[in-house]
Amino acid sequence: MLSKVPRKRIHRSKKKLGQAPGSVVYTGERSKEKLLIETFDYTKANCTEKHLNSVQESFGYKSTDSITWINLNGLNYVKDIEALGQHYELHPLVLEDIVNIAQRPKIDEYDNYLFVVLKMVYYDKNKTIVSEQVSFVLGENYVLSFQEAEGDVFDTVRDRIRNAKGRVRNMQSDYLLYTLIDAIVDQYFGVIEILGDKIEDFETEIFSGHIEEDASRNIQALKREILRVRRAIFPLREVLNRIEKNETELIQRKTLTYYRDISDHLIQVSENIDIYREMIWSLMDMYMTTISNKMNEVMKVLTIMASIFIPLTFIAGIYGMNFEYIPELKHRNGYFVVWGVMILIFLGMMYYFKRKKWL
Amino acid sequence: MLSKVPRKRIHRSKKKLGQAPGSVVYTGERSKEKLLIETFDYTKANCTEKHLNSVQESFGYKSTDSITWINLNGLNYVKDIEALGQHYELHPLVLEDIVNIAQRPKIDEYDNYLFVVLKMVYYDKNKTIVSEQVSFVLGENYVLSFQEAEGDVFDTVRDRIRNAKGRVRNMQSDYLLYTLIDAIVDQYFGVIEILGDKIEDFETEIFSGHIEEDASRNIQALKREILRVRRAIFPLREVLNRIEKNETELIQRKTLTYYRDISDHLIQVSENIDIYREMIWSLMDMYMTTISNKMNEVMKVLTIMASIFIPLTFIAGIYGMNFEYIPELKHRNGYFVVWGVMILIFLGMMYYFKRKKWL
Amino acid sequence: MLSKVPRKRIHRSKKKLGQAPGSVVYTGERSKEKLLIETFDYTKANCTEKHLNSVQESFGYKSTDSITWINLNGLNYVKDIEALGQHYELHPLVLEDIVNIAQRPKIDEYDNYLFVVLKMVYYDKNKTIVSEQVSFVLGENYVLSFQEAEGDVFDTVRDRIRNAKGRVRNMQSDYLLYTLIDAIVDQYFGVIEILGDKIEDFETEIFSGHIEEDASRNIQALKREILRVRRAIFPLREVLNRIEKNETELIQRKTLTYYRDISDHLIQVSENIDIYREMIWSLMDMYMTTISNKMNEVMKVLTIMASIFIPLTFIAGIYGMNFEYIPELKHRNGYFVVWGVMILIFLGMMYYFKRKKWL
Amino acid sequence: MLSKVPRKRIHRSKKKLGQAPGSVVYTGERSKEKLLIETFDYTKANCTEKHLNSVQESFGYKSTDSITWINLNGLNYVKDIEALGQHYELHPLVLEDIVNIAQRPKIDEYDNYLFVVLKMVYYDKNKTIVSEQVSFVLGENYVLSFQEAEGDVFDTVRDRIRNAKGRVRNMQSDYLLYTLIDAIVDQYFGVIEILGDKIEDFETEIFSGHIEEDASRNIQALKREILRVRRAIFPLREVLNRIEKNETELIQRKTLTYYRDISDHLIQVSENIDIYREMIWSLMDMYMTTISNKMNEVMKVLTIMASIFIPLTFIAGIYGMNFEYIPELKHRNGYFVVWGVMILIFLGMMYYFKRKKWL
Amino acid sequence: MLSKVPRKRIHRSKKKLGQAPGSVVYTGERSKEKLLIETFDYTKANCTEKHLNSVQESFGYKSTDSITWINLNGLNYVKDIEALGQHYELHPLVLEDIVNIAQRPKIDEYDNYLFVVLKMVYYDKNKTIVSEQVSFVLGENYVLSFQEAEGDVFDTVRDRIRNAKGRVRNMQSDYLLYTLIDAIVDQYFGVIEILGDKIEDFETEIFSGHIEEDASRNIQALKREILRVRRAIFPLREVLNRIEKNETELIQRKTLTYYRDISDHLIQVSENIDIYREMIWSLMDMYMTTISNKMNEVMKVLTIMASIFIPLTFIAGIYGMNFEYIPELKHRNGYFVVWGVMILIFLGMMYYFKRKKWL
Repeated sequence: MLSKVPRKRIHRSKKKLGQAPGSVVYTGERSKEKLLIETFDYTKANCTEKHLNSVQESFGYKSTDSITWINLNGLNYVKDIEALGQHYELHPLVLEDIVNIAQRPKIDEYDNYLFVVLKMVYYDKNKTIVSEQVSFVLGENYVLSFQEAEGDVFDTVRDRIRNAKGRVRNMQSDYLLYTLIDAIVDQYFGVIEILGDKIEDFETEIFSGHIEEDASRNIQALKREILRVRRAIFPLREVLNRIEKNETELIQRKTLTYYRDISDHLIQVSENIDIYREMIWSLMDMYMTTISNKMNEVMKVLTIMASIFIPLTFIAGIYGMNFEYIPELKHRNGYFVVWGVMILIFLGMMYYFKRKKWL
Repeated sequence: MLSKVPRKRIHRSKKKLGQAPGSVVYTGERSKEKLLIETFDYTKANCTEKHLNSVQESFGYKSTDSITWINLNGLNYVKDIEALGQHYELHPLVLEDIVNIAQRPKIDEYDNYLFVVLKMVYYDKNKTIVSEQVSFVLGENYVLSFQEAEGDVFDTVRDRIRNAKGRVRNMQSDYLLYTLIDAIVDQYFGVIEILGDKIEDFETEIFSGHIEEDASRNIQALKREILRVRRAIFPLREVLNRIEKNETELIQRKTLTYYRDISDHLIQVSENIDIYREMIWSLMDMYMTTISNKMNEVMKVLTIMASIFIPLTFIAGIYGMNFEYIPELKHRNGYFVVWGVMILIFLGMMYYFKRKKWL
Repeated sequence: MLSKVPRKRIHRSKKKLGQAPGSVVYTGERSKEKLLIETFDYTKANCTEKHLNSVQESFGYKSTDSITWINLNGLNYVKDIEALGQHYELHPLVLEDIVNIAQRPKIDEYDNYLFVVLKMVYYDKNKTIVSEQVSFVLGENYVLSFQEAEGDVFDTVRDRIRNAKGRVRNMQSDYLLYTLIDAIVDQYFGVIEILGDKIEDFETEIFSGHIEEDASRNIQALKREILRVRRAIFPLREVLNRIEKNETELIQRKTLTYYRDISDHLIQVSENIDIYREMIWSLMDMYMTTISNKMNEVMKVLTIMASIFIPLTFIAGIYGMNFEYIPELKHRNGYFVVWGVMILIFLGMMYYFKRKKWL
Repeated sequence: MLSKVPRKRIHRSKKKLGQAPGSVVYTGERSKEKLLIETFDYTKANCTEKHLNSVQESFGYKSTDSITWINLNGLNYVKDIEALGQHYELHPLVLEDIVNIAQRPKIDEYDNYLFVVLKMVYYDKNKTIVSEQVSFVLGENYVLSFQEAEGDVFDTVRDRIRNAKGRVRNMQSDYLLYTLIDAIVDQYFGVIEILGDKIEDFETEIFSGHIEEDASRNIQALKREILRVRRAIFPLREVLNRIEKNETELIQRKTLTYYRDISDHLIQVSENIDIYREMIWSLMDMYMTTISNKMNEVMKVLTIMASIFIPLTFIAGIYGMNFEYIPELKHRNGYFVVWGVMILIFLGMMYYFKRKKWL
Repeated sequence: MLSKVPRKRIHRSKKKLGQAPGSVVYTGERSKEKLLIETFDYTKANCTEKHLNSVQESFGYKSTDSITWINLNGLNYVKDIEALGQHYELHPLVLEDIVNIAQRPKIDEYDNYLFVVLKMVYYDKNKTIVSEQVSFVLGENYVLSFQEAEGDVFDTVRDRIRNAKGRVRNMQSDYLLYTLIDAIVDQYFGVIEILGDKIEDFETEIFSGHIEEDASRNIQALKREILRVRRAIFPLREVLNRIEKNETELIQRKTLTYYRDISDHLIQVSENIDIYREMIWSLMDMYMTTISNKMNEVMKVLTIMASIFIPLTFIAGIYGMNFEYIPELKHRNGYFVVWGVMILIFLGMMYYFKRKKWL
């Protein structure tokens, strides 16, 4: 289970080592997905939604005045992506990056388009965290988006375009990109909520004292999860930073306010992640303290048992000796006197331990 | 108790996920509060104080020359806030942020107003720390303030406006905003004072050696409290920083001196929080040391008891053997000689442990 | 003893909460001090030294060509300070800061004067560290200084003014301010020397192995002391930084060289403090190691005693059994053979522990 | 094995101490390598590949219009390198740096060439990590490369030049340098993949609980390896940063996009290294926890055994006493009653330990 | 031994407290050194080397066209230094700094000269690290150097000047300063080599498991040594940084390349020091782990011995009871049966411990 994490991160090295720069090679594992292309073409007044069979069908949208969103699912269809890229005059390195799913979130500015890579982060059915790459190309009147496979967080966006809800139909392509990124960032909140719940569960477990045996392992795994989420989300802040400082005409001044809003959300998410990190370190500390307290308890029981019975056993040993002349043994009440002494010692010990607060 | 913290932080995700950007949705829990609107309208000479029944009654103040403070309590009255927002031409994202109580302290500059979000931090009746969001909109001749519910720290400000105490009646709206923020920052001092007292109490407890069983849990909880206060207060420094570097005409040069003063106070508060953080880490260390010292004490008692009586019991065992021919047993004084030997061993041990400083 | 530290830091909140900004309220504890005003008025040729009874007597110096140093002791004389402030046209916030002794070292630039706050740090008679606030106002031909009470580090400065030693009588007010700050910074060296000695003493104690019981508490207290000194001294670096970059005409270019010299000293002090911090963390580590080594020694003694005598006692137990037929018991030399076996076991154990280096 | 690391790093001091600056002295250990010079001279249309016997044969390429790559293996041939350097007018310090293999990755800009030093990092046959220095000189129409010995990662580059694959034959010398650096950075991915595998192996080992005795030593060694890789790779980021901000005409604007791509890869590698660092610290923690859990288990067994049998042995001791009058001893069923009592105590103990979850 | 370190650092405070700024007071301990002045005066063609008896003899060199290096040993000769300073028009603070050996490495720029302070770092005969201050004044045609006592690292420089080796005779005074600083930095490599060896020795010791008793103390001492070296070397990076960015005409553009070379070396040294720091922290960790592993071994022996013999002794105790009716005792083979049972228990225990891997 754990082994997937680092291997995925470095896939690139395996498939691409020694390839000429700019080679468009898909580095992911989902090579059996179907190609899915959906397009939204809209103006303030109209909206056309289509599912295409080939990228070529989408070429017509480039020269229209309407805003077009072309969403391509299936990064293994390298040929189609290259065709689309050539039509939209994308740089070879952009195409390489689109299909190389080990990208770090980043923004690259080209002469007449912006290239943005980021990560959708979510928990899949097996409750393991998944970070899936999504690339965007923002042109003057279009947004291209590229995903590994079907299934995403853009349904609310589709809904708003179809039904002209909100501002999206009145705005340009830069606003469309904003709504798409916003949908992704919104999902981060869901992820950190789950992380928060997990940390709380640990906290409750540790506070209750009934710690499961593999607690330290689970804490370790959670640490790693936080590391992965952090890694997918943190570079995005820089991306947005660069958008905000951007002087390109592709993003209008009035839309910048909206990007600033995503920035705020991202900082919020980042802060939470950092707090979680700090909390989990504290939890590990708590765990160690709890373990060490339990150990102390064990030691106390041992000390008490041994300290009480060792001297008593010694006394019994004394009168178990076979010397011919031991005066006490002749005494009629010797046995009872010895019992008395033993009980006194016992009580004295108990009192001592009580005072030491070991009982 | 603990579970509220993270859940509150991420409320947004639950109520707002998938909403179009700019949707004005209240994300807090106090949906049953009454709407309370109070207005102060003053010039150097006069001051009118009113409690309004609807936001519409306040619309008249916008075009007057006097300074107006409109203070709205009840973020669940979304419609009223939207009405107010439209009248004062506020950006939809501003309205969204006002009612979304999970904001981070921030400042947004718009063409003819400033939007400032910050947090009141205080201990409530249950001694749990509460951070409540307050939003301000600063216009040329007005300040709008938005709070979740009635009850705030602005009474001294109201008093000064009514009775023309201090400079407030002679100054513009930027100075009014300053006094409001200053009142909030002043309260932070009260909070860190309580935090300081709590840390001292722990210190005394740990130094005294009589540590309660749930000490580590309480330290943990305090760490968390400091984390929360830090989180509410630290971003405000950046807000003030941006005000100080601001070139807007909304805040006059002579008022900047006052904002710089708040900055100084904030740095003081921040420094204290950081010192508390460092101290609490040290405390945890101290706690661990104390625990480990106690353990040592337990081990010493065990070692001493066992080391003394184990050899003595062995000797007793020797003469408890049933060999037919054990010469010592026949001796008339054998028993007493053995006692003598045992006492010598005992004293030798005692001397050894004394020298080792274990006694 | 410890409780004073944080309470002092946050005094302001108690006395000043809810006051209008700019209210001049003394926040210290020395409300019974006498007012002491001393003035030095000098030119290259002459020097007049006076002790005044009221601030009003000092007003004449403002318009002279000579350099004047007015040193006021007694921050509880708020009225007098306000009078002085009005005469010298100081901003209300400056007056507020002068009497609020919880200031952080800082510099504020006003149109025709500089306001500098810093801390004298020294060990008082009770060997506790004290940081006392000193405020300076630097005007074109005067320096005002404000202290809580009589007694300071400026005697060498007074001496140099009186006797025209060094450059001070040939220079302007900016050089006078420099000599005053230099005297304060010089004292920091004395403080870090004492801190250094304390750390060495701990080091010697821990290396010697004879650790006192409250060692961890003392280390903790020292950590705190370093924290306090750090807090009083570090912000001063920024103050000097801003002086060096200053473009005000109040500080001349040729005097800047001298301020840079203080900067160098401060960096030296700061570096030492940081080294001490690191050393004290190391000491705590050493302490823990020493404790844990002692524990090991205790455990070894227990292990050796128990491991040797437990099997021997078992053998004695065997022959203490009352079976009717135990052949060995009948043997004439049985008892001595058993002794022989026991001694062999004992020697074997000793050899084993020697080899393990536990003895 | 370990001793090589620091000694290698500081070789320079041994061979070069006291040499005049600019002395060209080889500081490596491979003084018996053969000199190998290979050249690629190509235009869009043609490509000539040669293996030269002396550097002098390469001098002709300098003045041609074609792009030339001269790759020299054998840094111990100081004379040849000096000859080449003089021909290409390299600064004496550049020559000194080429043969001093303890360089940090860096870039130096000279009037008509760029000098870049970086490190190839790979695992050799003995599974120890090796970082080998490669220096590049980029001129207008040539790239010189210098390596310690034969064997490198440039085969794919050679292949692409020979067969005109990719863009390399259509571009200038700046693109050639890019492909060479890219080949080196590509190999870093292989190294971090192995590091990742090693960390996983440790993780599996620690999670399984069957920890080898020298685990802590191996973790320590891995920490060191990561440190070395980090040291070889991290400064390269700065090198690329400076290339990107470079205003030299040696690197064309359109090639910069490619360098930015290496930058992205480097950041990815760096992030992985930092994650590995964090993970290995966590592993050490896990290891300590596991050790301490094992210790607890040992202590529990001891406590249980001792706590159960110590009181039972005491009871047996009681009735082993030789008092003349012990009433119980006369009882016909005394022996069985005592057995009964002992079994009850035994069961009581078992129940107690079960409830404490120590069993 | 240890006590010298901090005391030396803060000497200044003792001798200089309360002195007027600019007082030239020697703060070191070597007050009995002889004054040694040597001069090198050279042009491309000629070189005169002299040992002078008084500083006055050197005054003639100031106005010549040749390059002059005046090297003064003996900072206790304050008068002579002041005389030299006046002749070369040095600022009083420069003179103060030359004889105050507690300076931090720094550079001060004056109108017609540069003042540079740095530290020679070396191990003396007692294997303790020494950092000795060297000050340089760089004028247009001269370099003044000031050292505490005879004996330095400049012999190779002298040799090169005398014999016109390398470039030094062809260059200006800025290059002379470079060679002097380079000689000092070269020596740093020797120091870090020794530090590296020490760390390796510890590593070997800890890995071998035969740890000396004072290991933690020695590690502590090494930590401190690294701290001291770091402190002497790190500020020099900033000094060189400022030289590189310098716009003074005293250092020519073509010489800057050489200074950049020192910078590279310094970064290399600094990186090594930081790696050593990290390694020594790891070593401390390793040490703690080793100690704790040893402890575990002790505990295991105790547990095994006690767990095996405690139940056996109990059985022996049972049959040592004196009940009148114990049926087993009458049995002819009872004794042997009991032995059998005991051996079975013993074997069972051994098997259990083997399986637990405690044996």
